[in-house]
Amino acid sequence: MNGNLSAERQTFVTHLECSLTGEHYAADTLHGLSRAGRPLLVRYDLEAAGKALDRDALTRRETDLWRWRELLPVRQTSNIVSLGEIETPLVPIPASGGAEVLVKDEGRLPTGSFKARGLVMAVTMARELGVRRIAMPTNGNAGAALAAYASRCGIETVVFCPDDTPEINVREIAAQGARVYRVNGLIDECGALVARGAAEGLWFDFSTLKEPYRIEGKKTMGLELAAQFDWRLPDAIFYPTGGGTGLIGMWKAFDELEQLGWIGPERPKMFAVQASGCAPIVKAFEDGVEHAERWEDAHTVAAGIRVPKAVGDFLILRAVRESGGRALAVDDAAILSAVNVCARRDGLLLCPEGGATLAAYRDALAAGLVSASDRAVLFNCATGLKYPMPEANAALDKNAAIDLAAL
Amino acid sequence: MNGNLSAERQTFVTHLECSLTGEHYAADTLHGLSRAGRPLLVRYDLEAAGKALDRDALTRRETDLWRWRELLPVRQTSNIVSLGEIETPLVPIPASGGAEVLVKDEGRLPTGSFKARGLVMAVTMARELGVRRIAMPTNGNAGAALAAYASRCGIETVVFCPDDTPEINVREIAAQGARVYRVNGLIDECGALVARGAAEGLWFDFSTLKEPYRIEGKKTMGLELAAQFDWRLPDAIFYPTGGGTGLIGMWKAFDELEQLGWIGPERPKMFAVQASGCAPIVKAFEDGVEHAERWEDAHTVAAGIRVPKAVGDFLILRAVRESGGRALAVDDAAILSAVNVCARRDGLLLCPEGGATLAAYRDALAAGLVSASDRAVLFNCATGLKYPMPEANAALDKNAAIDLAAL
Repeated sequence: MNGNLSAERQTFVTHLECSLTGEHYAADTLHGLSRAGRPLLVRYDLEAAGKALDRDALTRRETDLWRWRELLPVRQTSNIVSLGEIETPLVPIPASGGAEVLVKDEGRLPTGSFKARGLVMAVTMARELGVRRIAMPTNGNAGAALAAYASRCGIETVVFCPDDTPEINVREIAAQGARVYRVNGLIDECGALVARGAAEGLWFDFSTLKEPYRIEGKKTMGLELAAQFDWRLPDAIFYPTGGGTGLIGMWKAFDELEQLGWIGPERPKMFAVQASGCAPIVKAFEDGVEHAERWEDAHTVAAGIRVPKAVGDFLILRAVRESGGRALAVDDAAILSAVNVCARRDGLLLCPEGGATLAAYRDALAAGLVSASDRAVLFNCATGLKYPMPEANAALDKNAAIDLAAL
Repeated sequence: MNGNLSAERQTFVTHLECSLTGEHYAADTLHGLSRAGRPLLVRYDLEAAGKALDRDALTRRETDLWRWRELLPVRQTSNIVSLGEIETPLVPIPASGGAEVLVKDEGRLPTGSFKARGLVMAVTMARELGVRRIAMPTNGNAGAALAAYASRCGIETVVFCPDDTPEINVREIAAQGARVYRVNGLIDECGALVARGAAEGLWFDFSTLKEPYRIEGKKTMGLELAAQFDWRLPDAIFYPTGGGTGLIGMWKAFDELEQLGWIGPERPKMFAVQASGCAPIVKAFEDGVEHAERWEDAHTVAAGIRVPKAVGDFLILRAVRESGGRALAVDDAAILSAVNVCARRDGLLLCPEGGATLAAYRDALAAGLVSASDRAVLFNCATGLKYPMPEANAALDKNAAIDLAAL
C-alpha cells in the first residue's frame, strides 16, 4: 500500500509571504489574501528540506502527488484527504502534434481534472486548520474537486457557477455532496457572492488564489514534470490559462527545485494560452503592462479559461516574460478542430482547454516561437468526456438485409 | 521517460491453448475462437520468465501496465500502441463501504474505463500480426477503447452497439475515428453482425474472448493487485460481470504468479456481480451448472453488465467456485443508491457497474459471506462521468437581494 499516505514526514514550511509586497504571515494559521489584496505564497526552509530528502529517496517512493511531501504545506499525514492523486502520464501525439510533443493528461486525476491537485491540498489544509464550511465560484471542474474532497472529510460546501455551466459539471458537484447554485453572471460575479458571504462570516472563501494552498497543489505539475523528464525540463510548456494558478505554481516549483539543486537554471518557455473570446492576459502581455484589465463580454467554448479577471495576473505575466515565452490566443474554431484531429488521429480525446494548447502550439510552431525539435508539453487539464462531442447517429435495422461490405 | 515503452524485453509466449479441450495452437499467428468454439488462452514459459525477471527488478520499473512485459504476449516494443496505461489507484471508501474496503478505480485508464487494458493488448497484437480492419459489438466502453487505440496506429474500425447505448459513448467512439452504428438489438445481436462480416472476410472479430489477447490485458488487474498488496492478495474481490474477461483474466494472473513463486496458493474469494435484470451467471451458479443460458429480456441501468450470454461462462463459473466466492445479483435501485452514497459520503463517483459491486459487497456482508475485517476490493470499471447523474437546478439571480445565510 501507499507509504506516502501512511508515513509521517518532516515538513519545512517557515511562513507565508505576500506575492506583491513580500510582507510575512505566520504559517499554520488561516489566511485569505494579503493585506495588499494579493495572493500569499508559502515559503519553505529548502536547505533543511534538501538535507532531509534527496532525489534518489524521492524516486523510490510511490509516484503520486504526496511523494513531494517535504515541499508541501501539510503537517499531519492523518489530515490528508486523498482520492488517489496519481502522477499523470505524458502521452505523445505524433500525428496531430509532432514527434516531440507530449500531452500531460490531467484528466486522469480524481474528478477528472487538474483542479484535484489544487483542491486536495487546499481542502487538506482547511481540515488541518479547522475550517467547517467553504464556498467557491467555479466554471465547473474546481467545484467538482472541492465537493469531492470536502464531502470526504465532512466539510460543508456551497458552490456558485455561471448559469451556462455544462449540466454534467453542475450535476457532478451536486452528486458529490455540495450545495450548488447557478447564477446569471460570469465567474467573477459568482466570486463576488462568495466574497460577500465570507465577509458575513458564513464560510471560508476558496476562490482561485484567494487562499494560499491551491497553488501548492498545482505546483506539483512542475515537480512531476521535472521527475518525469529526469530533472531536465522540457523546452516549452503550453498551459491553458484562466486564473493561472498552475502556471504560477509550476514557475514556483522550478525555483524551489533549483534552490534544492535538483535542476539547473534552465527554464521552459511558458506559453499562457487563452481563448480569443476571453484573452485579458494576452492583451496585457502585448500591451507590455503588469496587470490585466477585466475582459468584457467574455465568451468561448473553453469554459475553464473563461476568466475575465485574474487576481494573480501580474504573477502569470511575470513568469511568462521571465521564461521568454508568450501569451497566445486561439479562436473557438481552432480549439474544436484541434480536439477533433487529436482524437481522430492520436486516439486522445482532449478537453477544449487542452485543444486550445494544441492549437496554440501549432501557431507557435508556424510563427517560429518554438521549433519542431523543441520538446513541448501541452496540458490537457481535464478529461474530454465532460464536454460535448459531435453527434453520431447511424442506425441499422437488425431485421433488414444489411450489406456489411458497404459499412 | 518511461523505459517500459522503449526497452526491448525478452518474451516467453510458447503457444495458445483451447480453454475447453486443451488443444494447442501456434503463437504469433492470428486466431479467433478454438475449433471447439471456445476462447483461447495464451501460455508462457514461466520458468524461463521467472529467471529473466524477479519481483525486485519489476518493482523498480515504471508502474504502468507495460512493466509486466515478460508476462504479456507482445514481441516487439515498437508495436506497443500506448495512451498511458497507468497503474490504477486503490481508493478507500470508509464511509460507504467500510474500513477494509478499497475501490480499484479503473476510470483513470485511457478512454475512462478498464476496457483500455484489454484493448491496448488486443490492438497491439493485431498490429503485430498485420490486421488492417477490426469490428466489434459493444455496450459502449469497449468500443471507445478500440477506436482510440486502433485509430492511433492506423487500423480501421467498425463498431456496433445497441440502439439505447448512451449518447456519450456513441459520440466518443465516433470522435476517436471509428465508424459506429446503432442496432435495434442487444449486444449479442450486434455480435452476430460482427461474426457474419468476419465470415465474409470483411474484418477481424474483436468480440469479448473471441480473440485471445484482451484477456491478457485484463489479466494485468490481477498482477497489479498482487504488487499493490505487497504480494499478498486481498480476501475478496467484487467484480462487475458481463463478458467476464477481467474475472477470468485475474484468475489466470494469480495462477501465473503462483507458478513464478511470487505469491502463495491463497486466493481471494471472487464475487461475480450482475444486475438482477440480467443475471445469467448468477442463475447458472445457483443451479449448479457449468454453462449459462441466454438471459431473455435483459434490462439494467448498468449497461456494461447487460450481457445476456457470455462465451466464457464456464470459465467465470469455475473461477468463482474454485475461489469459494459467489455470483450475486443486485437490483437497479440498490445500484443507484450505492452510487449516490459513495459520491456523497466518500467523494468518489462510481459508474453504475462499480455501484453494483458496492451494493453486492453490502449484501455479502449482511449475509456473512465476507466479514467487516476482510480486505475487499471493488472494481469501479469506468469513470462515473460517462453516466447520467440526477438533475441539480438551483438558480440565483445576481440582480436580486440574495440571502446568502439561507443557502
